[in-house]
This record gives sequence, C-alpha cells and structure tokens, in this order.
Amino acid sequence: MKLIRNPKQIQRCSLNLRSKGKRIGFVPTMGYLHEGHLSLIRRSVKECDLTVVSIYVNPLQFGPREDFKRYPRNLKRDMMLAAAAGADYVFAPRDIDMYPGEFLTAVCVDKIGKILCGSSRPGHFTGVTTVVTKLFNIVLPDIAYFGQKDAQQAVIIRKMVKDLNMPVTIKVLPTAREPDGLALSSRNAYLNPSQRQDALVIYKSLRKARQLIRQGERNPHTIVISIKRLIQRVDSARIDYINIVDAADLSRIEKIKGNILIALAVFIGKFRLIDNIVLRV
Amino acid sequence: MKLIRNPKQIQRCSLNLRSKGKRIGFVPTMGYLHEGHLSLIRRSVKECDLTVVSIYVNPLQFGPREDFKRYPRNLKRDMMLAAAAGADYVFAPRDIDMYPGEFLTAVCVDKIGKILCGSSRPGHFTGVTTVVTKLFNIVLPDIAYFGQKDAQQAVIIRKMVKDLNMPVTIKVLPTAREPDGLALSSRNAYLNPSQRQDALVIYKSLRKARQLIRQGERNPHTIVISIKRLIQRVDSARIDYINIVDAADLSRIEKIKGNILIALAVFIGKFRLIDNIVLRV
Repeated sequence: MKLIRNPKQIQRCSLNLRSKGKRIGFVPTMGYLHEGHLSLIRRSVKECDLTVVSIYVNPLQFGPREDFKRYPRNLKRDMMLAAAAGADYVFAPRDIDMYPGEFLTAVCVDKIGKILCGSSRPGHFTGVTTVVTKLFNIVLPDIAYFGQKDAQQAVIIRKMVKDLNMPVTIKVLPTAREPDGLALSSRNAYLNPSQRQDALVIYKSLRKARQLIRQGERNPHTIVISIKRLIQRVDSARIDYINIVDAADLSRIEKIKGNILIALAVFIGKFRLIDNIVLRV
Repeated sequence: MKLIRNPKQIQRCSLNLRSKGKRIGFVPTMGYLHEGHLSLIRRSVKECDLTVVSIYVNPLQFGPREDFKRYPRNLKRDMMLAAAAGADYVFAPRDIDMYPGEFLTAVCVDKIGKILCGSSRPGHFTGVTTVVTKLFNIVLPDIAYFGQKDAQQAVIIRKMVKDLNMPVTIKVLPTAREPDGLALSSRNAYLNPSQRQDALVIYKSLRKARQLIRQGERNPHTIVISIKRLIQRVDSARIDYINIVDAADLSRIEKIKGNILIALAVFIGKFRLIDNIVLRV
C-alpha cells in the first residue's frame, strides 16, 4: 500500500489508471478508522480494481466551536488498518495542499443541507459537499463508499452527484455497531466509561421507535415524544434533534409510511453523537 | 459529426473514450455560433483526439428580466458550422434532462463572482459555474476552451477549476472581432443597423484606454472618466460598468501596473454588450 500526500500526484495516478480502463473504488474518511470504515474498504476491494482511502480531517466542515482541533488522528494506525483491509492507496493531504491561498469556491446543496444536522451545524454540509467534490475530482473514483451512520450526508451527496452529473456511483453501507448497539464513530473515543454507558440510550431509543412502529404506531410525533422521554432519563444526555423523515429526500412526513429515516443527534456530556435507522413500513 | 441529446449517453461515451486514453477537447457554448466559437473548435480539433461542442442556453444563468427566451437559437445552422470546423460531437441537451425534478445544488465562486457583471447580473455566475461543472462532469474533457470576450467568466472558471481540483485544463483564446472592431457575440444579432453602428463606441473606448496608457497615463480613474465621456456622446449607449482590475484575480488596482483588464458593459438600446482588453504594463 502506498501513502500519497500530494493531490496532483494522486490525480495524475488516477487519470492514468482510468485511461487504462481500471475501476477505482474510493472510501473518503476523516481517519481514526474503525470497523465501519473497514467494511467500506473491504467492499471496495471486492468490487474495484484499486481502492483509495482518503484520510483528511476537513477544516471546512467544522464550526468555529466544534472539535476540529481535538478530532482524533493517528495516521500510522490508520495505514496499518487500511492496508490490512486491502486498500491500495492512502491519500492523506495536508491542509495547505487542499486549500492553498485564498479559497473562494463552494458546492452547496440547498434545503436538505439545512435541516437536521445542518440546522445545528450551519455550513457543515457545504464543507462536506465541497471537500467531497474536491476528493472526487482528485481521486476520480468509479464507485465511492459511504456509511449509513451519516444518513443525511449520504442523501446530500447522492443529490449533489445527481444534480451535478458526477460520474461516480455512490454506495451506502450499513452502520457498524458495537456488540451492545452503539454506532461506531471516531468520536466515541472522546467518551469516558460512564458516558460510554450513557451513550447506549441512543440506539436503545431507535430500537424503541422501531418497536412502536411494529406495534402499529403511525404518528411520528408520538414516536418522537416517546424517544425524548427515554433519553431525558439519562442525566448526561441532551437532545440536539430527533426527527422522522422520508428516507430518500429527508422531507417531513405526517404519517409513518414508505421508507422512513429516524435520525437523532444527542450530546453525551460535551460530545455530540448521531445515529439513525431506516425502516420500510 | 454526431448530435447527442442525452447527458447520460454522452457521459458513457466520454467515459469509454477516456478509458481508451483518448484526449477530449470541449467547447461549451450557448449556440448561435460565430467565428469566436469556431476558433475555439478549430483549436480543440488541432490539440485533441475528439472535440465535443455543447449547445445549451442555460436558464440558470439568466435573470428573470433577461433575454433567456429571445436568446437566438438555430441548432441546424450551428451543427453545420460545428461540423465544418471539425467537431466530432454536438451535445445539445434539453432543459428537462439538465435540470430534472427539483434541482438543489449550486457551485459558487465568492467575491470575483459578485463584481463587474456579477453585480449587475446577480446569480449569473453561479448559474455559469453550476452548468459548467455539470458539463465538465458529463463531457469529461481534458481541455476546455473559452473566449477572452467573457473575461470575468474565464477568471471565475479558472478559479473554480483550481479550487475544486477539476481534472481539466482551461484555455482562453482571444476575442474574435468584426473588421470594424466590434467583439463577436451572439447578442449582436439583436442590433438594428443604427445600433450596430453605435456599438462601435465600445471597442473604440477600449482602444482609447490603451492609447492613454501607452502615452503614460497610470491612474485608472482618469482612464475610466475618459472612456465614460466617449461613450456618453452616443445617444443610444448607457454604461452599465467600466472597470480596470488585475487581470489574474479581478482585484481592484489603484495604479496601472502589471497585467490589467479593462472591462466594460454597455447597453445599446435595450441590449447589453460586453467587451474587454488585457494589457501588460
């Protein structure tokens, strides 16, 4: 496996591979890899001729008071894990090479970028879509792999790819979880043992929602209230949002029907965690 | 030469050509081709394995009171001209295929998209950068050719390509002119004979500016005032803007020095025409 730092170098390499008809798979990450990322890499290795993993903590998608600086980083460990999962290239650019000089361009997705996580993290998704556009243009993948844990991100990227005719297939793979249900996230590293225990309420509340729906509940508000109560019982937990929306376009629903996404963000202490499930009703 | 209407069809075709190592040249146009466009096509034919000309009057870059509906169109004539210039494909998509369903994504270039033409045509350059991104993703060119007549557009597209790492080389070719100096533009077709005569003041004023600079004038304000006077003598002419800026990044200059762009937009009757020259001082 090869480490490449320079965007131009990997772009030349990708252009060359594409001109030989090679199929490039791409797993964009912010590093501190966990089983969720590795499942994406392994899928790419299975489906493509070459797999590129990018490791880049993108400053553009962090708010001024967010955790950009303390976001966990460990390139050596990431490279070992990526290599073991079968990746061919790790692309880990430096900030100065990603945003040299004055940076003026943004790729924005309206509406669906402003709700849910977008309303508590203004500018976040524009940071995401802008860097993903850059990474796609640099790596030139045939297929790019994302995790369902970032459900809204996946919907927004699919919409961007469709609207801008990007020649990339987007595949979204299931959320990887700890045995006790906690969704894997690099941010779980922030949690102390008691917070780690408290964080279980997040997936527990999603399971509760699923149970209510299976029992016939069709009113999203009733379900949200029930989830709220469950989470409010945990002292260290503070709800950012809980929402039930159409899974395809994140539009509001008044009745549980079709493919629905139940998504939430919860602060455990100072740390904001997200999770979601998709149900077909 | 082949006419393709469907974005997916030409994208498949381009992906296939790229995977065989073919070099694709691209000339994006709004049609009603003139010698300016044809010079771009001929250059592409000389430099690339295949040349794609797009013909698309992009609604996104027209304001609500602008000339989208009356913009001149003549696909048959355009196809003959493109073929004669050596183009291999004309890509002329339909609106419904370029903007199907709800369109939510925009590519914006800040600052340099808001001055000059951007201040009199709000949203115009976002329409341009968004459609050019789409066209680049559909046609997948190695080289894309633009005319210097749209100087600001060229600077903005170069900046977008750099910021977003688009794998495209941008080439900007000189403005083509009538023998009497009028810059070629599809919009010249709007002018009646007397307006056509009045429009000559535009290039005349640019020549005047060049002459002043050659004579040693280094104050941009003095030059702008002198141009203004010249144009104001023509009854049907109304100045939209006259500006002298840095040719590379369109920034304000206080002194004529280095590579400078003298750009202006003038209404002749109801019709807005633009022109510019670049000088190295």
